Amino acid sequence: MRVRHKPWAKDYLATLPFCLNLEGFDFNKQYQNKNPLALEIGVGKGDFLKAMVFKFPETTFLGVELNASVLAVAAEKLSESLPSNFNIINADALLLMPLIPDNSVDYIILNHSDPWPKKRHEKRRLTHPKFVNEYYRVLKKGGIIILKTDNDGLAEYSYDVLNNYPFKEITFNKDYKGDAHFDAKTEYENKFTLKGVKIKRIVGKK
Amino acid sequence: MRVRHKPWAKDYLATLPFCLNLEGFDFNKQYQNKNPLALEIGVGKGDFLKAMVFKFPETTFLGVELNASVLAVAAEKLSESLPSNFNIINADALLLMPLIPDNSVDYIILNHSDPWPKKRHEKRRLTHPKFVNEYYRVLKKGGIIILKTDNDGLAEYSYDVLNNYPFKEITFNKDYKGDAHFDAKTEYENKFTLKGVKIKRIVGKK
Repeated sequence: MRVRHKPWAKDYLATLPFCLNLEGFDFNKQYQNKNPLALEIGVGKGDFLKAMVFKFPETTFLGVELNASVLAVAAEKLSESLPSNFNIINADALLLMPLIPDNSVDYIILNHSDPWPKKRHEKRRLTHPKFVNEYYRVLKKGGIIILKTDNDGLAEYSYDVLNNYPFKEITFNKDYKGDAHFDAKTEYENKFTLKGVKIKRIVGKK
Repeated sequence: MRVRHKPWAKDYLATLPFCLNLEGFDFNKQYQNKNPLALEIGVGKGDFLKAMVFKFPETTFLGVELNASVLAVAAEKLSESLPSNFNIINADALLLMPLIPDNSVDYIILNHSDPWPKKRHEKRRLTHPKFVNEYYRVLKKGGIIILKTDNDGLAEYSYDVLNNYPFKEITFNKDYKGDAHFDAKTEYENKFTLKGVKIKRIVGKK
Protein backbone atom coordinates (compact mmCIF):
# COMPACT_ATOMS: atom_id res chain seq x y z
CA MET A 1 0.00 0.00 0.00
CA ARG A 2 1.47 3.32 -1.03
CA VAL A 3 0.65 6.24 1.20
CA ARG A 4 2.58 9.48 1.12
CA HIS A 5 4.46 10.27 4.32
CA LYS A 6 2.36 12.58 6.44
CA PRO A 7 4.49 14.55 8.85
CA TRP A 8 1.34 15.55 10.73
CA ALA A 9 0.10 11.95 11.17
CA LYS A 10 1.28 11.41 14.74
CA ASP A 11 -0.02 14.77 15.95
CA TYR A 12 -3.35 14.13 14.25
CA LEU A 13 -3.66 10.67 15.76
CA ALA A 14 -2.90 12.11 19.20
CA THR A 15 -6.02 14.30 18.97
CA LEU A 16 -8.36 11.37 18.41
CA PRO A 17 -10.13 9.98 21.47
CA PHE A 18 -10.35 6.50 19.92
CA CYS A 19 -6.61 6.34 19.20
CA LEU A 20 -4.75 4.66 22.06
CA ASN A 21 -1.14 5.05 23.04
CA LEU A 22 1.21 2.16 23.57
CA GLU A 23 2.60 4.13 26.50
CA GLY A 24 0.11 3.70 29.29
CA PHE A 25 -1.81 0.94 27.48
CA ASP A 26 -3.67 -0.97 30.19
CA PHE A 27 -5.47 -3.97 28.74
CA ASN A 28 -7.49 -4.86 31.81
CA LYS A 29 -8.70 -1.31 32.33
CA GLN A 30 -9.47 -0.83 28.65
CA TYR A 31 -11.37 -4.09 28.20
CA GLN A 32 -13.45 -4.48 31.31
CA ASN A 33 -16.60 -5.21 29.35
CA LYS A 34 -17.20 -8.78 28.35
CA ASN A 35 -17.86 -8.24 24.65
CA PRO A 36 -15.88 -10.35 22.20
CA LEU A 37 -12.58 -8.66 21.43
CA ALA A 38 -11.12 -8.61 17.93
CA LEU A 39 -7.57 -7.52 17.19
CA GLU A 40 -6.76 -6.46 13.65
CA ILE A 41 -3.01 -6.51 13.07
CA GLY A 42 -2.30 -4.17 10.16
CA VAL A 43 -5.30 -1.91 9.76
CA GLY A 44 -4.08 -0.37 6.51
CA LYS A 45 -6.47 2.22 5.15
CA GLY A 46 -9.19 1.04 7.50
CA ASP A 47 -11.99 -0.01 5.12
CA PHE A 48 -12.25 -3.46 6.66
CA LEU A 49 -12.20 -2.15 10.22
CA LYS A 50 -14.82 0.48 9.48
CA ALA A 51 -17.13 -2.09 7.86
CA MET A 52 -16.69 -4.55 10.72
CA VAL A 53 -17.32 -1.93 13.40
CA PHE A 54 -20.73 -1.29 11.86
CA LYS A 55 -21.56 -4.93 11.10
CA PHE A 56 -20.66 -6.22 14.56
CA PRO A 57 -21.66 -3.59 17.13
CA GLU A 58 -21.45 -6.17 19.95
CA THR A 59 -17.79 -6.87 19.22
CA THR A 60 -14.99 -4.62 20.43
CA PHE A 61 -12.24 -3.96 17.88
CA LEU A 62 -8.66 -2.87 18.37
CA GLY A 63 -6.88 -1.95 15.14
CA VAL A 64 -3.09 -2.03 15.20
CA GLU A 65 -0.98 -0.31 12.54
CA LEU A 66 2.76 0.29 12.53
CA ASN A 67 2.75 3.06 9.93
CA ALA A 68 1.40 6.34 11.30
CA SER A 69 0.74 7.84 7.85
CA VAL A 70 -1.33 4.82 6.84
CA LEU A 71 -3.16 4.82 10.15
CA ALA A 72 -3.96 8.51 9.66
CA VAL A 73 -5.83 7.61 6.45
CA ALA A 74 -7.79 4.96 8.35
CA ALA A 75 -8.38 7.34 11.23
CA GLU A 76 -9.94 9.95 8.96
CA LYS A 77 -12.44 7.38 7.74
CA LEU A 78 -13.08 6.07 11.22
CA SER A 79 -13.63 9.51 12.69
CA GLU A 80 -16.74 9.75 10.50
CA SER A 81 -18.08 6.65 12.24
CA LEU A 82 -20.49 6.84 15.10
CA PRO A 83 -19.91 3.49 16.82
CA SER A 84 -17.66 3.49 19.85
CA ASN A 85 -16.83 -0.21 19.79
CA PHE A 86 -13.33 0.25 18.48
CA ASN A 87 -9.92 1.74 19.10
CA ILE A 88 -6.84 2.06 16.97
CA ILE A 89 -3.23 2.15 18.04
CA ASN A 90 -0.09 3.22 16.19
CA ALA A 91 2.20 0.48 17.43
CA ASP A 92 4.45 -2.41 16.54
CA ALA A 93 2.43 -5.58 17.21
CA LEU A 94 5.51 -7.14 18.79
CA LEU A 95 5.57 -4.40 21.41
CA LEU A 96 1.81 -4.41 21.94
CA MET A 97 1.30 -8.16 22.32
CA PRO A 98 3.28 -8.52 25.58
CA LEU A 99 0.82 -6.06 27.15
CA ILE A 100 -2.10 -8.39 26.42
CA PRO A 101 -2.82 -11.16 28.95
CA ASP A 102 -3.03 -14.85 28.04
CA ASN A 103 -6.41 -16.16 26.79
CA SER A 104 -8.04 -12.76 26.44
CA VAL A 105 -8.73 -12.18 22.73
CA ASP A 106 -11.53 -13.70 20.63
CA TYR A 107 -10.33 -12.83 17.13
CA ILE A 108 -7.00 -12.00 15.58
CA ILE A 109 -7.38 -10.69 12.05
CA LEU A 110 -4.71 -10.33 9.37
CA ASN A 111 -5.78 -8.96 6.00
CA HIS A 112 -3.41 -8.86 3.01
CA SER A 113 -0.36 -8.53 5.20
CA ASP A 114 2.87 -7.65 3.44
CA PRO A 115 4.08 -11.00 2.01
CA TRP A 116 7.81 -10.21 2.36
CA PRO A 117 8.58 -12.85 -0.28
CA LYS A 118 12.34 -12.90 0.20
CA LYS A 119 13.59 -15.57 2.58
CA ARG A 120 15.84 -13.08 4.36
CA HIS A 121 12.78 -11.01 5.22
CA GLU A 122 10.85 -13.97 6.64
CA LYS A 123 11.05 -12.53 10.15
CA ARG A 124 9.04 -9.51 9.02
CA ARG A 125 6.03 -11.58 7.98
CA LEU A 126 3.16 -11.14 10.39
CA THR A 127 2.81 -14.92 10.57
CA HIS A 128 6.42 -15.59 11.52
CA PRO A 129 6.47 -17.80 14.64
CA LYS A 130 7.63 -14.84 16.74
CA PHE A 131 4.23 -13.30 16.04
CA VAL A 132 2.18 -16.50 16.06
CA ASN A 133 3.59 -17.44 19.47
CA GLU A 134 1.99 -14.28 20.77
CA TYR A 135 -1.26 -14.65 18.80
CA TYR A 136 -1.70 -18.16 20.13
CA ARG A 137 -0.94 -17.10 23.67
CA VAL A 138 -3.43 -14.22 23.79
CA LEU A 139 -6.26 -16.09 22.04
CA LYS A 140 -8.97 -17.45 24.28
CA LYS A 141 -9.78 -21.14 24.10
CA GLY A 142 -12.16 -21.25 21.13
CA GLY A 143 -10.77 -17.95 19.84
CA ILE A 144 -9.77 -17.79 16.19
CA ILE A 145 -7.08 -16.29 14.01
CA ILE A 146 -8.28 -15.32 10.54
CA LEU A 147 -5.90 -14.53 7.70
CA LYS A 148 -6.92 -13.36 4.24
CA THR A 149 -4.44 -12.79 1.46
CA ASP A 150 -4.12 -12.61 -2.30
CA ASN A 151 -0.55 -13.90 -2.05
CA ASP A 152 0.05 -17.65 -2.52
CA GLY A 153 3.48 -17.59 -0.89
CA LEU A 154 2.26 -15.89 2.26
CA ALA A 155 -0.76 -18.21 2.42
CA GLU A 156 1.36 -21.40 2.16
CA TYR A 157 3.92 -20.05 4.61
CA SER A 158 1.28 -19.00 7.14
CA TYR A 159 -0.55 -22.33 6.83
CA ASP A 160 2.68 -24.23 7.52
CA VAL A 161 3.46 -22.05 10.54
CA LEU A 162 -0.05 -22.37 12.01
CA ASN A 163 0.14 -26.14 11.60
CA ASN A 164 3.00 -26.15 14.10
CA TYR A 165 0.70 -24.82 16.82
CA PRO A 166 -1.91 -26.90 18.65
CA PHE A 167 -4.92 -25.22 17.05
CA LYS A 168 -7.96 -27.46 17.42
CA GLU A 169 -9.15 -26.72 13.93
CA ILE A 170 -7.38 -25.26 10.94
CA THR A 171 -9.11 -24.43 7.67
CA PHE A 172 -7.34 -23.41 4.49
CA ASN A 173 -9.62 -22.09 1.75
CA LYS A 174 -7.73 -21.48 -1.50
CA ASP A 175 -10.61 -19.82 -3.31
CA TYR A 176 -12.47 -17.82 -0.71
CA LYS A 177 -15.69 -16.26 -1.96
CA GLY A 178 -16.30 -13.80 0.85
CA ASP A 179 -19.10 -15.83 2.39
CA ALA A 180 -17.88 -16.09 5.99
CA HIS A 181 -20.14 -14.53 8.61
CA PHE A 182 -17.50 -12.62 10.56
CA ASP A 183 -15.97 -10.79 7.63
CA ALA A 184 -16.14 -7.75 5.39
CA LYS A 185 -14.65 -7.13 1.96
CA THR A 186 -11.30 -5.38 1.89
CA GLU A 187 -10.14 -2.91 -0.74
CA TYR A 188 -7.47 -5.42 -1.81
CA GLU A 189 -10.01 -8.20 -2.04
CA ASN A 190 -12.17 -6.31 -4.49
CA LYS A 191 -9.15 -5.27 -6.54
CA PHE A 192 -7.64 -8.76 -6.74
CA THR A 193 -10.94 -10.53 -7.32
CA LEU A 194 -11.54 -8.26 -10.31
CA LYS A 195 -8.08 -9.24 -11.62
CA GLY A 196 -8.99 -12.94 -11.28
CA VAL A 197 -6.60 -13.52 -8.37
CA LYS A 198 -8.02 -15.97 -5.84
CA ILE A 199 -8.33 -14.90 -2.24
CA LYS A 200 -6.83 -17.35 0.22
CA ARG A 201 -8.31 -17.56 3.73
CA ILE A 202 -6.89 -19.45 6.66
CA VAL A 203 -8.64 -19.87 9.99
CA GLY A 204 -7.11 -21.39 13.11
CA LYS A 205 -9.27 -22.11 16.13
CA LYS A 206 -7.57 -22.51 19.51
CA MET B 1 -12.76 -54.45 14.28
CA ARG B 2 -12.91 -58.12 15.17
CA VAL B 3 -15.50 -60.16 13.34
CA ARG B 4 -15.42 -63.96 13.24
CA HIS B 5 -14.86 -65.39 9.78
CA LYS B 6 -18.22 -66.24 8.27
CA PRO B 7 -17.87 -68.90 5.56
CA TRP B 8 -21.43 -68.12 4.45
CA ALA B 9 -20.82 -64.35 4.04
CA LYS B 10 -20.28 -64.27 0.29
CA ASP B 11 -23.27 -66.50 -0.43
CA TYR B 12 -25.44 -64.41 1.88
CA LEU B 13 -24.33 -61.14 0.26
CA ALA B 14 -25.11 -62.60 -3.18
CA THR B 15 -28.76 -63.00 -2.18
CA LEU B 16 -29.19 -59.31 -1.32
CA PRO B 17 -30.64 -57.10 -4.04
CA PHE B 18 -28.82 -54.03 -2.68
CA CYS B 19 -25.40 -55.75 -2.76
CA LEU B 20 -23.60 -55.04 -6.03
CA ASN B 21 -20.93 -57.12 -7.70
CA LEU B 22 -17.63 -55.71 -8.88
CA GLU B 23 -18.01 -57.94 -11.91
CA GLY B 24 -20.52 -56.23 -14.15
CA PHE B 25 -20.42 -52.98 -12.14
CA ASP B 26 -21.60 -50.25 -14.52
CA PHE B 27 -21.37 -46.84 -12.91
CA ASN B 28 -23.29 -44.90 -15.54
CA LYS B 29 -26.13 -47.38 -15.59
CA GLN B 30 -26.27 -47.63 -11.81
CA TYR B 31 -26.19 -43.88 -11.17
CA GLN B 32 -28.40 -42.36 -13.81
CA ASN B 33 -30.30 -40.28 -11.29
CA LYS B 34 -28.88 -36.93 -10.38
CA ASN B 35 -28.95 -37.27 -6.62
CA PRO B 36 -25.74 -36.53 -4.76
CA LEU B 37 -23.61 -39.65 -4.58
CA ALA B 38 -21.67 -40.60 -1.45
CA LEU B 39 -19.05 -43.32 -1.40
CA GLU B 40 -18.15 -44.81 1.95
CA ILE B 41 -14.81 -46.63 1.78
CA GLY B 42 -14.75 -49.19 4.58
CA VAL B 43 -18.33 -49.70 5.72
CA GLY B 44 -17.38 -51.82 8.73
CA LYS B 45 -20.38 -52.97 10.71
CA GLY B 46 -22.59 -50.49 8.90
CA ASP B 47 -23.95 -48.34 11.73
CA PHE B 48 -22.82 -45.12 10.09
CA LEU B 49 -24.15 -46.10 6.66
CA LYS B 50 -27.50 -47.14 8.09
CA ALA B 51 -27.87 -43.86 10.00
CA MET B 52 -26.89 -41.77 6.97
CA VAL B 53 -29.26 -43.60 4.63
CA PHE B 54 -32.14 -42.59 6.87
CA LYS B 55 -30.90 -39.07 7.57
CA PHE B 56 -30.22 -38.18 3.93
CA PRO B 57 -32.89 -39.85 1.78
CA GLU B 58 -32.03 -37.56 -1.16
CA THR B 59 -28.43 -38.78 -1.24
CA THR B 60 -27.41 -42.05 -2.87
CA PHE B 61 -24.88 -44.10 -0.91
CA LEU B 62 -22.48 -46.77 -2.05
CA GLY B 63 -20.76 -48.60 0.80
CA VAL B 64 -17.51 -50.40 -0.05
CA GLU B 65 -16.01 -53.06 2.21
CA LEU B 66 -13.13 -55.43 1.50
CA ASN B 67 -13.95 -57.96 4.20
CA ALA B 68 -16.99 -60.08 3.33
CA SER B 69 -17.56 -61.24 6.91
CA VAL B 70 -17.62 -57.66 8.15
CA LEU B 71 -19.88 -56.58 5.30
CA ALA B 72 -22.25 -59.42 6.15
CA VAL B 73 -22.73 -57.89 9.62
CA ALA B 74 -23.50 -54.52 8.01
CA ALA B 75 -25.78 -56.17 5.45
CA GLU B 76 -27.89 -57.81 8.15
CA LYS B 77 -28.49 -54.39 9.70
CA LEU B 78 -29.12 -52.74 6.37
CA SER B 79 -31.57 -55.41 5.23
CA GLU B 80 -33.84 -54.20 8.05
CA SER B 81 -33.82 -50.76 6.45
CA LEU B 82 -36.56 -49.59 4.15
CA PRO B 83 -34.78 -46.89 2.14
CA SER B 84 -33.52 -47.84 -1.29
CA ASN B 85 -31.01 -45.01 -1.60
CA PHE B 86 -27.97 -47.20 -1.03
CA ASN B 87 -25.96 -50.14 -2.25
CA ILE B 88 -23.05 -52.04 -0.77
CA ILE B 89 -20.25 -53.81 -2.56
CA ASN B 90 -17.72 -56.37 -1.33
CA ALA B 91 -14.70 -55.03 -3.16
CA ASP B 92 -11.20 -53.67 -2.90
CA ALA B 93 -11.52 -49.90 -3.34
CA LEU B 94 -8.45 -49.95 -5.60
CA LEU B 95 -10.29 -52.25 -8.02
CA LEU B 96 -13.57 -50.37 -7.77
CA MET B 97 -12.25 -46.84 -8.26
CA PRO B 98 -11.08 -47.31 -11.88
CA LEU B 99 -14.69 -48.15 -12.77
CA ILE B 100 -15.86 -44.74 -11.57
CA PRO B 101 -15.65 -41.84 -14.06
CA ASP B 102 -13.85 -38.57 -13.34
CA ASN B 103 -15.83 -35.85 -11.52
CA SER B 104 -18.79 -38.02 -10.63
CA VAL B 105 -18.88 -38.38 -6.83
CA ASP B 106 -20.10 -35.81 -4.30
CA TYR B 107 -18.77 -37.33 -1.08
CA ILE B 108 -16.05 -39.76 -0.19
CA ILE B 109 -16.27 -40.89 3.41
CA LEU B 110 -13.64 -42.66 5.49
CA ASN B 111 -14.50 -43.50 9.09
CA HIS B 112 -11.94 -44.90 11.51
CA SER B 113 -9.96 -46.56 8.77
CA ASP B 114 -7.28 -49.01 9.89
CA PRO B 115 -4.32 -46.75 10.84
CA TRP B 116 -1.62 -49.27 9.79
CA PRO B 117 0.86 -47.47 12.06
CA LYS B 118 3.99 -49.25 10.82
CA LYS B 119 5.86 -47.41 8.10
CA ARG B 120 6.20 -50.58 6.05
CA HIS B 121 2.40 -50.84 5.94
CA GLU B 122 1.92 -47.25 4.76
CA LYS B 123 0.65 -48.42 1.39
CA ARG B 124 -2.29 -50.13 3.06
CA ARG B 125 -3.60 -46.89 4.59
CA LEU B 126 -6.76 -45.75 2.84
CA THR B 127 -5.24 -42.28 2.52
CA HIS B 128 -2.05 -43.40 0.83
CA PRO B 129 -1.57 -41.35 -2.36
CA LYS B 130 -2.47 -44.37 -4.50
CA PHE B 131 -5.97 -44.09 -3.02
CA VAL B 132 -6.15 -40.30 -2.79
CA ASN B 133 -5.20 -40.00 -6.48
CA GLU B 134 -8.38 -41.90 -7.24
CA TYR B 135 -10.52 -40.09 -4.68
CA TYR B 136 -9.47 -36.74 -6.07
CA ARG B 137 -10.07 -37.86 -9.64
CA VAL B 138 -13.61 -39.15 -9.07
CA LEU B 139 -14.73 -36.22 -6.89
CA LYS B 140 -16.84 -33.59 -8.59
CA LYS B 141 -15.70 -30.01 -8.45
CA GLY B 142 -17.06 -28.91 -5.08
CA GLY B 143 -17.22 -32.52 -3.91
CA ILE B 144 -15.69 -33.36 -0.54
CA ILE B 145 -13.70 -36.07 1.13
CA ILE B 146 -14.47 -36.50 4.81
CA LEU B 147 -12.26 -38.50 7.14
CA LYS B 148 -12.97 -39.22 10.80
CA THR B 149 -10.57 -41.06 13.02
CA ASP B 150 -9.63 -41.59 16.65
CA ASN B 151 -6.01 -42.18 15.59
CA ASP B 152 -3.57 -39.25 15.72
CA GLY B 153 -1.04 -40.88 13.43
CA LEU B 154 -3.54 -41.60 10.70
CA ALA B 155 -4.99 -38.10 11.02
CA GLU B 156 -1.59 -36.38 10.67
CA TYR B 157 -0.58 -38.67 7.82
CA SER B 158 -3.85 -38.15 5.95
CA TYR B 159 -3.72 -34.39 6.44
CA ASP B 160 -0.20 -34.27 5.01
CA VAL B 161 -1.22 -36.38 2.01
CA LEU B 162 -4.35 -34.31 1.29
CA ASN B 163 -2.26 -31.13 1.43
CA ASN B 164 -0.35 -32.40 -1.60
CA TYR B 165 -3.50 -32.28 -3.72
CA PRO B 166 -5.09 -29.10 -5.07
CA PHE B 167 -8.13 -29.17 -2.80
CA LYS B 168 -9.71 -25.74 -2.66
CA GLU B 169 -10.38 -25.99 1.03
CA ILE B 170 -8.96 -28.28 3.67
CA THR B 171 -10.16 -28.34 7.26
CA PHE B 172 -8.50 -30.26 10.08
CA ASN B 173 -10.50 -30.44 13.29
CA LYS B 174 -8.53 -32.06 16.10
CA ASP B 175 -11.40 -32.20 18.56
CA TYR B 176 -14.49 -32.90 16.52
CA LYS B 177 -17.71 -32.75 18.50
CA GLY B 178 -20.00 -34.44 16.00
CA ASP B 179 -21.72 -31.23 14.97
CA ALA B 180 -21.30 -31.41 11.18
CA HIS B 181 -24.51 -31.52 9.17
CA PHE B 182 -23.61 -34.36 6.83
CA ASP B 183 -22.60 -36.86 9.48
CA ALA B 184 -23.76 -39.54 11.89
CA LYS B 185 -22.10 -40.98 14.98
CA THR B 186 -20.09 -44.13 14.47
CA GLU B 187 -19.77 -47.00 16.92
CA TYR B 188 -16.05 -46.18 17.28
CA GLU B 189 -16.80 -42.52 17.86
CA ASN B 190 -19.06 -43.25 20.81
CA LYS B 191 -16.56 -45.73 22.24
CA PHE B 192 -13.55 -43.45 21.94
CA THR B 193 -15.37 -40.33 23.08
CA LEU B 194 -16.37 -42.16 26.26
CA LYS B 195 -12.69 -43.08 26.77
CA GLY B 196 -11.72 -39.40 26.41
CA VAL B 197 -10.02 -39.89 23.03
CA LYS B 198 -10.56 -36.94 20.72
CA ILE B 199 -12.09 -37.53 17.32
CA LYS B 200 -10.12 -35.98 14.47
CA ARG B 201 -12.00 -34.91 11.35
CA ILE B 202 -10.47 -33.80 8.08
CA VAL B 203 -12.45 -32.41 5.16
CA GLY B 204 -11.05 -31.69 1.72
CA LYS B 205 -13.16 -29.81 -0.84
CA LYS B 206 -12.23 -30.12 -4.50
